[in-house]
Amino acid sequence: MSVPSGATTYMIFRLQIDKELTSLGDIAATIEKTGGDIVGIDVISSGRTSTVRDITVNVFDQTHSQLIGESLQSLSGVKVIHVSDRTFLVHLGGKIEINSKIPVKNRDDLSRVYTPGVAQICTAIAQEPSKAYLLTIKRNMIAVVSDGTAVLGLGDIGPLAAMPVMEGKAMLFKQFGGVDAFPICLDTKDPDEIVSIIKAIAPAFGGINLEDISSPRCFEIEERLKRELDIPVFHDDQHGTAVVLLAGLLNALKITGKQMSDIKVVVNGIGAAGIACSKMLLAAGVRNLIGVDRYGAINRNTQYDNAHWTEFAQMTNPNLEAGSLSDVIQHADVFIGVSAPNILTVDDVRSMARDPIVFAMANPTPEIDPELAKPYVRVMATGRSDKPNQINNVLCFPGIFRGALDCRASEINEEMKLAAAQAIASVVTDEELNETYIIPSVFNQKVVEKVREAVVEAAYRTGVARKSMRDPNKE
Amino acid sequence: MSVPSGATTYMIFRLQIDKELTSLGDIAATIEKTGGDIVGIDVISSGRTSTVRDITVNVFDQTHSQLIGESLQSLSGVKVIHVSDRTFLVHLGGKIEINSKIPVKNRDDLSRVYTPGVAQICTAIAQEPSKAYLLTIKRNMIAVVSDGTAVLGLGDIGPLAAMPVMEGKAMLFKQFGGVDAFPICLDTKDPDEIVSIIKAIAPAFGGINLEDISSPRCFEIEERLKRELDIPVFHDDQHGTAVVLLAGLLNALKITGKQMSDIKVVVNGIGAAGIACSKMLLAAGVRNLIGVDRYGAINRNTQYDNAHWTEFAQMTNPNLEAGSLSDVIQHADVFIGVSAPNILTVDDVRSMARDPIVFAMANPTPEIDPELAKPYVRVMATGRSDKPNQINNVLCFPGIFRGALDCRASEINEEMKLAAAQAIASVVTDEELNETYIIPSVFNQKVVEKVREAVVEAAYRTGVARKSMRDPNKE
Repeated sequence: MSVPSGATTYMIFRLQIDKELTSLGDIAATIEKTGGDIVGIDVISSGRTSTVRDITVNVFDQTHSQLIGESLQSLSGVKVIHVSDRTFLVHLGGKIEINSKIPVKNRDDLSRVYTPGVAQICTAIAQEPSKAYLLTIKRNMIAVVSDGTAVLGLGDIGPLAAMPVMEGKAMLFKQFGGVDAFPICLDTKDPDEIVSIIKAIAPAFGGINLEDISSPRCFEIEERLKRELDIPVFHDDQHGTAVVLLAGLLNALKITGKQMSDIKVVVNGIGAAGIACSKMLLAAGVRNLIGVDRYGAINRNTQYDNAHWTEFAQMTNPNLEAGSLSDVIQHADVFIGVSAPNILTVDDVRSMARDPIVFAMANPTPEIDPELAKPYVRVMATGRSDKPNQINNVLCFPGIFRGALDCRASEINEEMKLAAAQAIASVVTDEELNETYIIPSVFNQKVVEKVREAVVEAAYRTGVARKSMRDPNKE
Repeated sequence: MSVPSGATTYMIFRLQIDKELTSLGDIAATIEKTGGDIVGIDVISSGRTSTVRDITVNVFDQTHSQLIGESLQSLSGVKVIHVSDRTFLVHLGGKIEINSKIPVKNRDDLSRVYTPGVAQICTAIAQEPSKAYLLTIKRNMIAVVSDGTAVLGLGDIGPLAAMPVMEGKAMLFKQFGGVDAFPICLDTKDPDEIVSIIKAIAPAFGGINLEDISSPRCFEIEERLKRELDIPVFHDDQHGTAVVLLAGLLNALKITGKQMSDIKVVVNGIGAAGIACSKMLLAAGVRNLIGVDRYGAINRNTQYDNAHWTEFAQMTNPNLEAGSLSDVIQHADVFIGVSAPNILTVDDVRSMARDPIVFAMANPTPEIDPELAKPYVRVMATGRSDKPNQINNVLCFPGIFRGALDCRASEINEEMKLAAAQAIASVVTDEELNETYIIPSVFNQKVVEKVREAVVEAAYRTGVARKSMRDPNKE
């Protein structure tokens, strides 16, 4: 029996093996008989008659893993100590840690980093608060704040269960942008309370990355914090997605030879991300943009209970198109999906203008199966890492905060976001550009540096950078 | 001219030196002429005619440093690029950073630490919240929380200026106890708001260390949090001081051959630390303890506006002694000062019982100058690192939180604090014990391990440890 195709989960079976009763060969045969693929064996401890080994096996799913465990347990001389999932293992004890930048080896060190020496640093900041950027972690530290109400596709799972995502985000901030980030998961859903908590904890931080907060509360929380704090506040689910989408669209339009000002864009799903993507596209020059949600195309002749839709209607749909997605998608140049699986049909795509561009970003299942769409689209992008043209926020947030921190920006404004999108797009050269490569890989090391430079330049240009161009504290 | 005694500040002069116009010998002579002591020279860059060097000089004070800077600037061929204080330098950009425990090198890593793999971790915690201790940073992370109202001897300097102390504390937690600690400085002084913020941010943390919050708000904040949170809450200024004081007193009594139950103790300064020290001593068996504050000895026949004093009066002063410090110090065996400089006179000490024990912990200037007290005391301890027997909280907080986290304690109770004090005292062996060595050095590596063991044992004994003794997740 061969390994089922799609066996992508690794499980680690820790076995205590009585050498006199069984052999590694017996064990391997048992695992293979149940369809498991052994990818590694590690010795944990070894005695005269007994040995403990970790057998890493590529399995199909949990049921398959259980089957293997039971077969092993039934072997004479084998005891299954425990079974771990590799994903679980990397999460054991959490994924980030706090480290000192300098060791405290003796009394002299201690007297500088702590009492009594630290008092002169405190006094310097008390006298001149902006020195906090020089002498505390504020220079390079952001908070990744969530209330756990809209985590991945899982919904409202609460602050404790949201932590692994926020820790992961903190890892990516550091790894890709050199930004120190700390996860704060709040045990409250009240927008007033969330705003006042974030304001109260702000002194330690140089920026706030809001994450996985459900709509419409996320709008109010972000808007109020932007007004009331003097450090950048950025809801990544909205603006990160919008920036990377725009980057992809800039390159897709190069391929089709169309202009922002001429295209018809249909955005499906007018929630937080849909509104942010739409605003970004309008700022980038799109004139004919139509939003569609569950009641059809949004237009300013209709009354909405949702104030965000009323505002959205004022900015969009200049020709007052009405009807369903299938109605308004006709002759559209671009489809942007931030909605639900399989909502766009092949017929819809066939009714679009020549060279259709489809960004189907619902995760993990896109608005249309890329394989179905393939014959009819010119450029297709999704949120999936196993397909070409992945729209992934990791392309944006490390660089945009790196830039904002480096120039001590008081906010991340539209110009900085536009600059970031152009920078991401520019990483794909004209020679490299083609239908299956409109957006760089998240592991492309040029991305962060290009985004950083563009964001810093835009911050100085728009007057929100607060660091003098030549910092006397840096040689 | 020799270096003035007491020259303890190091300044670093970064000089651009024109080699054709001057020499390092000229520069050294100039510095020495002004009384500076060169302790190091580092080459920063070197060209054909010009070189940049960092000259580290031991100086007397800021004025002295300025004088040296001016003398160097006046030398032909020398340009002073900048002058830095070594203490400032170690604070540049803050003292701690966030690191990933594992690198994200490729798409496979990314899919495990972030989407899509992280979703199964989130789901596991949503289904079984206690898994947060296994799969998030909660296992080893505490918050160091301050509102910046009582920072060192500096008072209410605000949250921004308090950060260097909290960062320093986080360094010490990691360095001495392996505990990850993150500084949270709150921009509010309202106890209700502080309590609700700490409760809201608690999901990420396995414990809360309150720090430098002014009295009496610190009592209310700590008491409410202890009631309302299921993780340890510990106000270090109160309990850390009390634990280390008790450790010192246990050993001091061994030297004088007296028993806790027999001694008369006078505690001067009935604020947060004074009350905590008194409670700790009563818990350790002291019966005759008298608190003194600005209106004299506190006793239960007097009415107090301060509810904490009223409560204190009920527990202390069994013989209803009255009067000033000078009155009640007579025939006392132990003086504990957590008050103000030079408040205890030589005559006061001379009126104490035989073998006086004096803990004069006001910082940086003790209640009595150790040199003046020396002829009349048997054992003397202070808060200063340049005198014997330093009562330093660093002896307590890393080990006590290490222990509490390791057994997943729901609180740090009196028994755990008593156990910590006994553990610290036990590091000084009977052979080593003498009048000038009643308490181990903060750099003594046995301290944390002994404290940890004692605290874990006490937590299991008192039923507040929530981790099963043999953790199936640890081999």
